[in-house]
Amino acid sequence: MSIHLSQRAIDIPPSPIRKLLPFELEAKKRGTHVYKLNIGQPDIPTPEGFFRALHTDLPPVLGYGPSQGLPEFQRAVAQYYQSIGIPFEPGEIMATIGGSEALFFAFLAVANPGDEIIVFEPFYTNYIGFAIYAGVKLVPYTTRAENGFHLPAREELEKLVTPRTRAILVCSPNNPTGTVLTRAELEMVGQLALDRDLFVISDEVYREFAYGGEVPTSMMAIEQVRDRVILCDSISKRFSACGARIGNLATKNAQVWQSVLRFGQARLCPATAEQMGAISLYGLGQDYYEQVRQEYQARRDAIFEGLMAIPRVVCQKPHGAFYIMAQLPIDDGDRFAQWLLTDFSSGNETVMVAPGAGFYATPGAGLQEIRLAYVLESAKCRRAMELLREAVHVYPGSLLK
Amino acid sequence: MSIHLSQRAIDIPPSPIRKLLPFELEAKKRGTHVYKLNIGQPDIPTPEGFFRALHTDLPPVLGYGPSQGLPEFQRAVAQYYQSIGIPFEPGEIMATIGGSEALFFAFLAVANPGDEIIVFEPFYTNYIGFAIYAGVKLVPYTTRAENGFHLPAREELEKLVTPRTRAILVCSPNNPTGTVLTRAELEMVGQLALDRDLFVISDEVYREFAYGGEVPTSMMAIEQVRDRVILCDSISKRFSACGARIGNLATKNAQVWQSVLRFGQARLCPATAEQMGAISLYGLGQDYYEQVRQEYQARRDAIFEGLMAIPRVVCQKPHGAFYIMAQLPIDDGDRFAQWLLTDFSSGNETVMVAPGAGFYATPGAGLQEIRLAYVLESAKCRRAMELLREAVHVYPGSLLK
Repeated sequence: MSIHLSQRAIDIPPSPIRKLLPFELEAKKRGTHVYKLNIGQPDIPTPEGFFRALHTDLPPVLGYGPSQGLPEFQRAVAQYYQSIGIPFEPGEIMATIGGSEALFFAFLAVANPGDEIIVFEPFYTNYIGFAIYAGVKLVPYTTRAENGFHLPAREELEKLVTPRTRAILVCSPNNPTGTVLTRAELEMVGQLALDRDLFVISDEVYREFAYGGEVPTSMMAIEQVRDRVILCDSISKRFSACGARIGNLATKNAQVWQSVLRFGQARLCPATAEQMGAISLYGLGQDYYEQVRQEYQARRDAIFEGLMAIPRVVCQKPHGAFYIMAQLPIDDGDRFAQWLLTDFSSGNETVMVAPGAGFYATPGAGLQEIRLAYVLESAKCRRAMELLREAVHVYPGSLLK
Repeated sequence: MSIHLSQRAIDIPPSPIRKLLPFELEAKKRGTHVYKLNIGQPDIPTPEGFFRALHTDLPPVLGYGPSQGLPEFQRAVAQYYQSIGIPFEPGEIMATIGGSEALFFAFLAVANPGDEIIVFEPFYTNYIGFAIYAGVKLVPYTTRAENGFHLPAREELEKLVTPRTRAILVCSPNNPTGTVLTRAELEMVGQLALDRDLFVISDEVYREFAYGGEVPTSMMAIEQVRDRVILCDSISKRFSACGARIGNLATKNAQVWQSVLRFGQARLCPATAEQMGAISLYGLGQDYYEQVRQEYQARRDAIFEGLMAIPRVVCQKPHGAFYIMAQLPIDDGDRFAQWLLTDFSSGNETVMVAPGAGFYATPGAGLQEIRLAYVLESAKCRRAMELLREAVHVYPGSLLK
């Protein structure tokens, strides 16, 4: 058949994480236990209030809801922001189908096909997908493991701004690096956005995941750019409810909000039941976050200590999220990740990691890196790091030989 | 502030249906009862199995599901198709967030920004939104109330094909016209697609809604084009579950399916709970459809008879869906629809309709038309048509004077 797909249908990459799935299945078939640190799927049970809301609060005709979300959802999210010092009103909240849709709508609102958005790589791989949806070009600035993946000086960043640049996209606490950006870094981004007339898209879905008493600064705390920030958020990680697909966009820019509302009208509404569940979750408050935070901090420490026991690993202790991006003494993270599943086992166990290159837009970048998601209990994290250390030594492409 | 939005953020139109909401609220505040025939929101209760599935079938950690949908969902949908003679396998089904996302992914898979898709106007307004998401140009062929909004001869249609045409989009039974396309019409579209190397995107979300014993032909029944059909479907209307946001795409074209899977990986997955509910709904079978069909047929008859009692109305009795598009003796459907809410009432009652122009891409088309969704019981439909008849006579822009 001669008929051909669109170029973007060809260009859109397979998920660099999900492509290892067949090899994981093979390993399991051989009876090998796989410690899964490859995907940001928390193991924390979804709080019961979510399920109770699905049991009790649904109308007999499950009709369309408002495109901007249920009023109770908008109120619950606004109250959450107010409780942490971010002054959003309910009318500035737009319910979205996960943080995914918030990011996609933000891209649509600021950029036409062919326009550019500056991102810091390594970055959340699905930014590539949303950019392809929207026909937008991601222009990456490469941050480095050596300095904890922090941002460059303004002069370096400004070199990437062109007449087609429409926004800078930041994510803190960061997936995949775990880096928490400092207030000074966010101010630099904000000032550059002001001076060069850009929007700032801020992905803050890991806001509660910061350790050692650190409180991540929201882009919304940088007052002089508040009216050009598009905040993207989600209940997926905050409440271990990834399968609910509920997120939100929030902005004080009325023009952006109105255009996002119209984008939202085209897809009608997010799921009603899941919003009911989310409303309940936003009632949980600080005790819940604190308990989850303590658990993840212990896991981070276990993972980081284990990594530090491997010779020639390059990474700094991350302050947030539940990821760590590490440069290993290996030839190629893709081959290493696959080899861990197909050829390695110790005590009939192995470990599954995400290859680093998939988190970069620059070809050839991140080849020696892997991302670890510490979504297992601390004891399992420790064992997984023992396996990783052993594997790095015996891997045929090891640079330790 | 000088910062400006993207052109598409400005271009995306507000929902022509939802923009009347403030006037409806005003009417209600005055104590006027509003018969709502403006939106395709069924009043039929969502079957109980849907809610039961949400109560019983959820895992304690509501994690990400597969991007293509739960295997049980794919199987349930494939069985449904097989039961009506459409030979889809589970691996050819892709779960989507409503029919909306199925259409959007179909647009992405076949067209690059600037490419063209041929549509028959009047059409479902949200096609405009998905086209703006994807940067795709909709090229409309205008069908007419006089001949029941049926398709033109091939020669007429072929005039719209250009080197940038990538697909023809058909919807049968049709929203907003209620028209059921004949097998001959679908064959004509299929043959044109074959000859000019185009895809066919087929929106069949109203498949069960056809009256008088008519069984709508699926585009998949046209065997010679099966490998270039992208079927878009949804549980919203079929099971009165609009707020669930569960639909599916289905295609025998493996390249299309693989690219749609990659588009789907970027947004991770549709909501797990809602898929569980949908699986239960697909177990309902023909008895359920037959009962719903009888109810809607009575409503259609009530609406159509009421319309025929209005002088100089142009419309043919529609065979399917739950819509009717009628040309009225009025100056402007937008003004008329608003006037019904702001200035008209009889016995303290009025009727809410959707202005026709919003269903056309051609400027100035459909100005005298309205769309009625018969989503109220027959007695209410009859009363609403009495109100409409009275209104058409006293409306200041009436052409009956």
